[in-house]
Amino acid sequence: MARNAHPERTRRRILDAAQELFDERGYEHTSIQDIVDRLGNLSKGAIYHHFPSKKAILEAISQRDNAAQEQARRTIAARDDLDGMAKLRETLRWSTENTAHMRLIASLTPQLDDPITFAENIHVWSAKVPKMFLPVIEEGVADGSIPTAYPRELADLMGLLLNYWTITRYFPAARAQLRHRLECMATMFTALGAPVLDDELVAQMTDTLAAYNGLDGGAEGAPAAGTGVIPTP
Amino acid sequence: MARNAHPERTRRRILDAAQELFDERGYEHTSIQDIVDRLGNLSKGAIYHHFPSKKAILEAISQRDNAAQEQARRTIAARDDLDGMAKLRETLRWSTENTAHMRLIASLTPQLDDPITFAENIHVWSAKVPKMFLPVIEEGVADGSIPTAYPRELADLMGLLLNYWTITRYFPAARAQLRHRLECMATMFTALGAPVLDDELVAQMTDTLAAYNGLDGGAEGAPAAGTGVIPTP
Repeated sequence: MARNAHPERTRRRILDAAQELFDERGYEHTSIQDIVDRLGNLSKGAIYHHFPSKKAILEAISQRDNAAQEQARRTIAARDDLDGMAKLRETLRWSTENTAHMRLIASLTPQLDDPITFAENIHVWSAKVPKMFLPVIEEGVADGSIPTAYPRELADLMGLLLNYWTITRYFPAARAQLRHRLECMATMFTALGAPVLDDELVAQMTDTLAAYNGLDGGAEGAPAAGTGVIPTP
Repeated sequence: MARNAHPERTRRRILDAAQELFDERGYEHTSIQDIVDRLGNLSKGAIYHHFPSKKAILEAISQRDNAAQEQARRTIAARDDLDGMAKLRETLRWSTENTAHMRLIASLTPQLDDPITFAENIHVWSAKVPKMFLPVIEEGVADGSIPTAYPRELADLMGLLLNYWTITRYFPAARAQLRHRLECMATMFTALGAPVLDDELVAQMTDTLAAYNGLDGGAEGAPAAGTGVIPTP
């Protein structure tokens, strides 16, 4: 394939191959040469023509993932068959079921060991994510489906706790403990007037988070091997 | 006073003067020369004899503050007139009423703009602080004063939320909003079986946190001038 014959398609192929490799072996253990080898018919120069560095590829993958998340959120927000509570649940369900998104997060979690990346992520979960939850919560307050006196606080807690408190690298937990933590969040949110984490979501989030935190294979209730550390295969 | 006549006393005087200055003008805007000027009868060389850098002085002040906190916690934990819940409340009350501790935290908050310092602090609030809360919570579970199914989760939430979610630099709030946030925490903790934040503690923590977040002077309910930024006078 000639370089730049279909630049957008080439860009997408590079991102797809890189995302696969980051997932398989982790970002740190993937080189530009690995991406060249995976693609088969593109030179290193062709890749550098599109992206100045591996970091730039990572940023483009993250942007693409964010755009997909944002698109899903808009689509859900625009549905007129759902009230605020149902939209909030549907948004969480969509993220949890989005395998590409969850695998990307899992493959990038070791990057959080870098304090600058860590601080950036905490700031996103503390400021940007709550701003995305808030309009849906406020819609639920207005339509009566989320009878809370704490819409802003719920948005803050959902942004911070669902993203940070669920990482067993920082808050060690076997699978059963992770489930207990999600049940704790369900109880809290219900007490605040937002029973958003129903039994189905708690079960689904436990499965997904356990898988992507590398906890599967551990017996229910017993600490899994490597608890708290996401393996980079 | 001759150098090293009373090395421990000299060390303490240096830390006291530095802590006063950090409080008055902020860590960034305090120099070793300022500390020399404040002490009056010690040379720069005498200070460097005790501490290799301003950073080392800061670390010694933080260690001293941590030791005082730890001592208070042990004293409270050893009291046989209090059950687990009363000890947990007393620990929070002690921290809130400890002016030197609260002013130190306030004067150092701008340091959190440095991502390495920020990441270190979040890790302390996520791992170390919960470990300190947990034994008292477990004592309350055992003596029936904290009827919770979520002792570990409560310890995590108290460590993270009481320390991080109360910083208006990151979660902007006027005084009334800060109070509402604390009422939200009280409701959550109560729903989890630990009504640790009673009305008195919520009122006291609102006063203290508003003062040290620089929110006083703003009208109740209206955003205070400089909301979210702790002034370094």
